[in-house]
Amino acid sequence: MNKTITLAQGNGGEENNELISKVFYKAFKNDILEKSEDAAIIHNGELAFSTDSFTVSPLFFAGADIGKLAVCGTCNDLAMMGAKPKYLTCSVIIEEGFSTSELEIIVSSMKKELEVNGAIVVSGDTKVVPRGSVDKIFINTTGIGEVIKKGISSNNITQDDLIIVNRDIGCHGATIFSAREGIEMSSSLKSDCESLFAQVKALIDANINITAMRDATRGGVSAVLNEWSKQSNICIEVQEDKIPVSDEVVGICEMLGFEATALANEGTFVLAINKEDAQKAVEILKTFQNCSNATIIGKVTDRHLKRVILNSSFGTSRFLETPSGELLPRIC
Amino acid sequence: MNKTITLAQGNGGEENNELISKVFYKAFKNDILEKSEDAAIIHNGELAFSTDSFTVSPLFFAGADIGKLAVCGTCNDLAMMGAKPKYLTCSVIIEEGFSTSELEIIVSSMKKELEVNGAIVVSGDTKVVPRGSVDKIFINTTGIGEVIKKGISSNNITQDDLIIVNRDIGCHGATIFSAREGIEMSSSLKSDCESLFAQVKALIDANINITAMRDATRGGVSAVLNEWSKQSNICIEVQEDKIPVSDEVVGICEMLGFEATALANEGTFVLAINKEDAQKAVEILKTFQNCSNATIIGKVTDRHLKRVILNSSFGTSRFLETPSGELLPRIC
Repeated sequence: MNKTITLAQGNGGEENNELISKVFYKAFKNDILEKSEDAAIIHNGELAFSTDSFTVSPLFFAGADIGKLAVCGTCNDLAMMGAKPKYLTCSVIIEEGFSTSELEIIVSSMKKELEVNGAIVVSGDTKVVPRGSVDKIFINTTGIGEVIKKGISSNNITQDDLIIVNRDIGCHGATIFSAREGIEMSSSLKSDCESLFAQVKALIDANINITAMRDATRGGVSAVLNEWSKQSNICIEVQEDKIPVSDEVVGICEMLGFEATALANEGTFVLAINKEDAQKAVEILKTFQNCSNATIIGKVTDRHLKRVILNSSFGTSRFLETPSGELLPRIC
Repeated sequence: MNKTITLAQGNGGEENNELISKVFYKAFKNDILEKSEDAAIIHNGELAFSTDSFTVSPLFFAGADIGKLAVCGTCNDLAMMGAKPKYLTCSVIIEEGFSTSELEIIVSSMKKELEVNGAIVVSGDTKVVPRGSVDKIFINTTGIGEVIKKGISSNNITQDDLIIVNRDIGCHGATIFSAREGIEMSSSLKSDCESLFAQVKALIDANINITAMRDATRGGVSAVLNEWSKQSNICIEVQEDKIPVSDEVVGICEMLGFEATALANEGTFVLAINKEDAQKAVEILKTFQNCSNATIIGKVTDRHLKRVILNSSFGTSRFLETPSGELLPRIC
């Protein structure tokens, strides 16, 4: 590894994985951590437990703000493990001189999103640091969820599963990028930031055979699929033209040379669902607002284990790699 | 409140309490949060849950570093509620360019202190932000503990209790201040940073009738006693000359006009113990390294409800107030 920490090591992709495994997993080694799920499953499988720190810039952006993001991010990690978000902690680090009214807006967004999840904040911490020690405000949320559907795991995906996304991808990354670069879009582009527990619960209530779920945050859909291919020792083949991407996101990607599959999302998740239930799952997802594009995007094969293959409609194929390089810092 | 957030609002004292109650408690209002304990008690009283973010500067100081501090701080909050620390999350925000080897030292300190507590890290998050967005590294730890002694609460202290401290106070605050100001002390002054679960467990194992415990971090012993006097609607009277303070800490306090009772600690806690067990509790605490000065410092009366009175050996009395003003930012 490098002698100093690089931005790329926080990208949610290749270099980030290396830092986590060589420094943190190496030191903290234990069975739960090594499962590398979206949330740890503890207390005899009854509870899910997950943490995230939010450093997004700007704090306010089309579709959400850091407060909503902080609640969605942690609640979604719990939901991805089949857990109902219940208890959150909220720890803020605020720069001296930060606007009190902006803080109140952020906290009010958190409150609103907690209600959406039926969760409460039960413990907090408030630090104020001198100017220049932090850029405006960082928020950590850590959550405990009650597991309502056991056995969901990114380590158990097989050729019996199909791969689904719940909506069009890349909106959060494209929105943050546009906001930061001052790109004026005469469009409806906004972050997909949203709590996903309702969608998960609908699938569970319908008895859908869910193998794995993961929200495609930093590193986007590419990162999720590549992690899954390694964790479950499978090949995931995705049909490129099946991946839903809005015109606005396509536009931003073309302008900047990004791949939509590497863009961050905050209300978009990937599902591995047993073949028999996949179409039914899609129909359920489609009943949710913003999910009219829910669709099956791929299948599991043994063509190249631990790799993801993107098949084009012209019959050509290429590997979809884990994103690497600097990508977009402070996306979440 | 002010239009912008001030350093004083992060002091662990008066202004900090106001910010927490007027912004966070107001929005997140619920029964658990309003108990204002060191950790939330959840899951039918079985589990304790607590969060803390660590922003200490410098990162390395006599007696500990930010890694040890981050594990001690959260594990101690759990221990104060009679809980055995079990599962922690670790979320780091690192500045681009931070030294990889320093990061490894910090993580290794965390690992060592986790072992002391018999706890494991089960979930993590790693963000890297551009230079200038954060000063070096901030760490959030959030922990779940298994409650081994139920009913401990800062809201239940009565005149049947005596007030104890486990050791001499103010070492952490004095150490950080000295390190930051470059004061050369030809002394053995070092932070008291230490995991407290072993001390708590010894008291529980001996069947000591524990009413309340709180580690005297930001705002020091003064903050704890004042919070308790309000939460339990009591007057706490402390005998000034009974409060153990080392010569080194007295020296720093005199030099700088601080009160030792307002200095932060990271391995010092205050106990409210039933009168019948108080002396036995002190004897048990004294068997621990660094706790040879464990002692009864005060009692509970109804002289001035919700206030703390400091009685001098000359027979004079004064109120010991909740600390206010800027105190020392980035102490933990």
